[in-house]
Amino acid sequence: MKLIYTGKTKNVFELEDGNYLLKFKDDVTGENGVFDPGANTVGLTLEGAGRAGLSLTKHFFEVLKEQGIPTHYIDANIDEATMTVRPATVFGKGLEVICRYRAVGSFLRRYGLYAEEGQALDAFVEVTLKDDDRQDPPISEDALDMLGILTKAEYAVLKDLTQQIGNVVKAELAKKDIELYDIKFEFGRVGEGKEIVLIDEISGGNMRAYKNGEYIEPLQLEKLMLEA
Amino acid sequence: MKLIYTGKTKNVFELEDGNYLLKFKDDVTGENGVFDPGANTVGLTLEGAGRAGLSLTKHFFEVLKEQGIPTHYIDANIDEATMTVRPATVFGKGLEVICRYRAVGSFLRRYGLYAEEGQALDAFVEVTLKDDDRQDPPISEDALDMLGILTKAEYAVLKDLTQQIGNVVKAELAKKDIELYDIKFEFGRVGEGKEIVLIDEISGGNMRAYKNGEYIEPLQLEKLMLEA
Repeated sequence: MKLIYTGKTKNVFELEDGNYLLKFKDDVTGENGVFDPGANTVGLTLEGAGRAGLSLTKHFFEVLKEQGIPTHYIDANIDEATMTVRPATVFGKGLEVICRYRAVGSFLRRYGLYAEEGQALDAFVEVTLKDDDRQDPPISEDALDMLGILTKAEYAVLKDLTQQIGNVVKAELAKKDIELYDIKFEFGRVGEGKEIVLIDEISGGNMRAYKNGEYIEPLQLEKLMLEA
Repeated sequence: MKLIYTGKTKNVFELEDGNYLLKFKDDVTGENGVFDPGANTVGLTLEGAGRAGLSLTKHFFEVLKEQGIPTHYIDANIDEATMTVRPATVFGKGLEVICRYRAVGSFLRRYGLYAEEGQALDAFVEVTLKDDDRQDPPISEDALDMLGILTKAEYAVLKDLTQQIGNVVKAELAKKDIELYDIKFEFGRVGEGKEIVLIDEISGGNMRAYKNGEYIEPLQLEKLMLEA
């Protein structure tokens, strides 16, 4: 088993059978000890955060599998905080795809002249480049195509999958009376056919969720979602 | 004649016949005395800048008219540094539409991970909001539509006009062995049919132009373009 990537919240190993093993850490993104799913730095370390994030990820990836939505997921070992996945290649040097149901965070910072805080957004999709040095800039469909990161046909698939998956997560949260405000995903190409599938994770650290108008921290969200 | 808008580089008056009069100032955008077409502040005042900008604007608007590309232009008085135009309403609180032929400026600052300085771009179009407080954020076609600023049909017209006009300006510059790197435009809706037309100006302050690999300042560009 060979370490091939050290990430902010997880490490990636290559297995002998060619699949990848993701090891979830107890680190979550944020700044100055405050969680922020949009941040580029590890803001705090929380005992059990890795296992909790993996548990929720496993739950969502299995729901997506039931619904026939493609992901890289194979299986998970909660005790070890590891997940086995199919190897995927990312678009360019990595993209984040955001699905927004209410105006908060960077959307509001950019478009506050036209949107009020908390205003409903209709599963709005936007793409940002993973580029810490340039604060993850937003990028348009045309620019992705021109720079050779993603074709227009791939963009259409990516946008459609993002809204489908966002809606699945939103519906799952709604079962616990929790409202999804926004969520970010990563996608990659897998296999010889370069099928576009969801990769990485779907945990509290990827989304902003509210209950009775109050923001729910990632660990609390994972607890609420997974309790019987 | 009534002053209805005080801009950074020109003032707008309403005429008795309902048309608008634009009065070009000698102020150009930039920071710390250095010209920057992307800047939100007046960086310097140059004697004759208003008349020079208007002269070049008049030239381009007349070329566009010959080619059947719609603008708000009616006529110009160079001595007075004024231009008479049809009244237009802007999209939302104002947009800038940029057409890029080489990677420089904010494009490079955002996408430097994927583009090299000066790399050729194929009349790439992007839209930014006019919002000084939020540093004129870029905005996607989907967001413009969702926020009610521009419909998808209008976006298609805007993008097509931007590339057509960019190509006209590029070809005009090429006649003087000058290369257009990027240019920004403003558009508005005019008349009862809300036709989308080019508004504002096309002067040195709107574009980055190079000759023999060297950047040409706006006043110098206007001189080179208008000399016999």
